[in-house]
Amino acid sequence: MSQSIEFFFDPASTYSYLAATQIEAFAKEHGATVSWKPFLLGKAFEATGNKMPALVPAKGKYLFKDATLWAKLYKVPFAFPKNFPLNSVLASRAIIAADQAGQGVPFALAALTAYWAEGADLTLPDTVAAIASKLGLDGAALVAATGEAAVKDVLRANTEDAIARGVFGAPTFFIGKQMFWGNDRLPLMSAWLKGELA
Amino acid sequence: MSQSIEFFFDPASTYSYLAATQIEAFAKEHGATVSWKPFLLGKAFEATGNKMPALVPAKGKYLFKDATLWAKLYKVPFAFPKNFPLNSVLASRAIIAADQAGQGVPFALAALTAYWAEGADLTLPDTVAAIASKLGLDGAALVAATGEAAVKDVLRANTEDAIARGVFGAPTFFIGKQMFWGNDRLPLMSAWLKGELA
Repeated sequence: MSQSIEFFFDPASTYSYLAATQIEAFAKEHGATVSWKPFLLGKAFEATGNKMPALVPAKGKYLFKDATLWAKLYKVPFAFPKNFPLNSVLASRAIIAADQAGQGVPFALAALTAYWAEGADLTLPDTVAAIASKLGLDGAALVAATGEAAVKDVLRANTEDAIARGVFGAPTFFIGKQMFWGNDRLPLMSAWLKGELA
Repeated sequence: MSQSIEFFFDPASTYSYLAATQIEAFAKEHGATVSWKPFLLGKAFEATGNKMPALVPAKGKYLFKDATLWAKLYKVPFAFPKNFPLNSVLASRAIIAADQAGQGVPFALAALTAYWAEGADLTLPDTVAAIASKLGLDGAALVAATGEAAVKDVLRANTEDAIARGVFGAPTFFIGKQMFWGNDRLPLMSAWLKGELA
């Protein structure tokens, strides 16, 4: 039976972007599937007392260089956004709306890449609509859907579920009950999926 | 020319222990050498405003389970110490004294394993002396040396050097000017040493 990886991510999180570029290929390599779950990292920070790493200047400085190296390792584009930090509510809701339109993963990847590599401002409805339209979605309809309960409720539920299960940062993965925090946990998850950590 | 890896670690740090169990084999595999540099992580926290991860309860809970998985991956013993957190000044000075007696790495590994897997209290001079004696060192002389300027000055210099170079956590590695933070950066360091991130 194929194992399922739950991928909790926030478009505002650097390492969520990096992990998003890898997780589908990673899962395929391990015969697993991925369930993409946008959530509001800021709410998890509030609930747990955790803080944005960039609030420690030495850490922020390092993490920027570190993310640049991971992007090179993964061979994906990366350019630190001018409009950081991002209020990711609209982007996260748009990812959920795109998912309900059957294009969650392509839209999530396009939106995260637009923000983390191409300087797009994901707080602007027109920008979000344009990313959707490029994928053949109805951009205006997608933005309109971000105001609907059927979309908003999923983001709220994902966030509450994440916090209830101990999430304090992003990205966070679950394989069954086992939690893995961080893009840098993919090697450990690989060993777990192969049954090497039992 | 063989590349050199500087390994800044604190015996009080879980992931310093985990990395210590791997770094010599890792370096050998990459044709590199390791320079072991004990430093006082608490001073780096003070200087940078960074904090012990365990101060966020959700993070502390996760990191314990995470460290357990890494220990399984590395096939090394691990049992969370009862006397945590550790005041690591004596242990760090003892590692430096052992290094000056030509046994720095074996003693560091023995001391870290004693604390992180065997319940030893590294704040006790007798315990530190016993670990040294088992390696054929003069345990009493080693403990005495921890009070000498030639030892204390190295710990102070390592700590000041680390902070000046941007260290905010442990373990931290340097390959030339490039800094890598965390046991989980070994895969990235591997790519770096192979020239894949240029």
